[in-house]
Amino acid sequence: MRVVAFGGGHGLSASLRALRGLSTDLGTDLDITAVVTVADDGGSSGRLRAERAALPPGDLRQALAALAAERPDTQATAELFQHRFTPDGRDHSPLDGHTVGNLVLVGLMEQLGDPVSALDHAARMVDAAGRVLPMAVKAVGIEADIRGADPRRPQTLLTVEGQHAVAVAPGHVEAVRLTPADPPACPEAVAAVERADWLIFGPGSWYTSVIPHLLVPDLAAAIVASAARRLVTLNLAAEPETWGLSAADHLAALHWYLPGLKVDTVLADGTAVGDPEPVRRAAESLGARLVLAPVAVADGSPRHDPAALGAALVPVLGASR
Amino acid sequence: MRVVAFGGGHGLSASLRALRGLSTDLGTDLDITAVVTVADDGGSSGRLRAERAALPPGDLRQALAALAAERPDTQATAELFQHRFTPDGRDHSPLDGHTVGNLVLVGLMEQLGDPVSALDHAARMVDAAGRVLPMAVKAVGIEADIRGADPRRPQTLLTVEGQHAVAVAPGHVEAVRLTPADPPACPEAVAAVERADWLIFGPGSWYTSVIPHLLVPDLAAAIVASAARRLVTLNLAAEPETWGLSAADHLAALHWYLPGLKVDTVLADGTAVGDPEPVRRAAESLGARLVLAPVAVADGSPRHDPAALGAALVPVLGASR
Repeated sequence: MRVVAFGGGHGLSASLRALRGLSTDLGTDLDITAVVTVADDGGSSGRLRAERAALPPGDLRQALAALAAERPDTQATAELFQHRFTPDGRDHSPLDGHTVGNLVLVGLMEQLGDPVSALDHAARMVDAAGRVLPMAVKAVGIEADIRGADPRRPQTLLTVEGQHAVAVAPGHVEAVRLTPADPPACPEAVAAVERADWLIFGPGSWYTSVIPHLLVPDLAAAIVASAARRLVTLNLAAEPETWGLSAADHLAALHWYLPGLKVDTVLADGTAVGDPEPVRRAAESLGARLVLAPVAVADGSPRHDPAALGAALVPVLGASR
Repeated sequence: MRVVAFGGGHGLSASLRALRGLSTDLGTDLDITAVVTVADDGGSSGRLRAERAALPPGDLRQALAALAAERPDTQATAELFQHRFTPDGRDHSPLDGHTVGNLVLVGLMEQLGDPVSALDHAARMVDAAGRVLPMAVKAVGIEADIRGADPRRPQTLLTVEGQHAVAVAPGHVEAVRLTPADPPACPEAVAAVERADWLIFGPGSWYTSVIPHLLVPDLAAAIVASAARRLVTLNLAAEPETWGLSAADHLAALHWYLPGLKVDTVLADGTAVGDPEPVRRAAESLGARLVLAPVAVADGSPRHDPAALGAALVPVLGASR
């Protein structure tokens, strides 16, 4: 069964960690492809992107770490990729803030001259349980029109530039765009969508990690045209970029940015959703049934538990159409 | 057959590349351990050592790359380790000058808290044909009393501090020391020396890559006490730090710094040595026979050819005592 999971950082990692163990439960080999946003402009990724004209590596690195084989050697390499240089009591050094994996990915992209070859090699280094691809072969920008981005002028619509700035701005996102508006999709990602059995959107930062995929023209066209079934996994809580948005609003946003998107299943945590009826109606308007399952970690924080999410995915992915 | 090769940068790499292919020719598995100087204070290694309190990784990285398995995936990882960030037409960035492998090794040492575990993991990443160990578990300094280090005062003896400064200073090295004088040897390196069948010194920068091993007290004691046979591979040409030293002088220097060192075989390139008689006498004064063989690359530059060096090593290592 061929599964393509779209997203960015932590949400996509949870989704991949949930998927990677399911082959046995599903009784079929899962062929996993992660398609990852390349819009990050903050922190280590932002610096590497600016200084070395690289694809921002952070979200790609996290997806690789999530898919690393569970052997001690490959887990140690995954932990190496995630190791972040910090001052740790020393004077600030120019490496501070970078993870080793970000530097490895930038080095591989420079060495091999091609992000897909670089990611495929990095995947071999951790014996990844799937492939990690960028949504586009060039770094993109994100900008958003946000009402109330300046809290002193809550009714004013401002354009905020940069994934990081959009993600942390207060106010209500009224429109989000990529810059440039038509980045070149990664052909291998488009091909993976075309032959997929399932496309999985979310969880993740809705405007800065999930919707960007729908804004890459060739990728969006492939998503609409694919014969795959589609699953949307809703977030457990709003983030600054989605404050004030209900679960139903999240689904409506997908439709707004890609009207041709049909969805088969919407997976949500019953406790997080509260009254399911508005979500059920929003799901049905996309052609989807709503599945409620407990998928959050036990400590009450709004993070998906990979094992619980995996258990919830088994009947969804295992169901015939 | 257990072989321990001592050295630093390029010379040690040539030795390791020569050794790694010899198991078939020798008709026995070669168990290779590289013991590497940790005195580098120049370039990327010097910056990482200063900024991150790390063992200088450059020479360790080169040894790992030399031992990488010859499969496409492990060679690609070795090339990644050797990939050096350069401005490449862009503005200078803080990564310029660092190799990915140096950053990987520093990351592993921070992550695992122990240089030997870090090196063992890095060795697994390239499926190395041997183990790479530091000569000491703390970075050391090198200083030398050099007559004529200031070319305007050719008779004046000056103390020059730092491996890089010593390596490039003009003049004649009259004494070389480690700072501190008694660094803690790497216990695994000492153990490898104790159980070795062969200890191999050189080629390499004599004062800054070969002799430093003889100045680590516990390592020197193990070298003297070991039942292993000893091979010295002489350099093909003098370097700034050894200008004016004959091949015989190189051998005398080993005796000067470790009087208890007995040598079984001295391997030299006949063309590079010229009149072999002084070298033969110097070898014999250490208890060694002189073996002459063509071991240089074909283009006339003073670099050892790994295949030629390997061919010369077969009868040496294969000979019974």
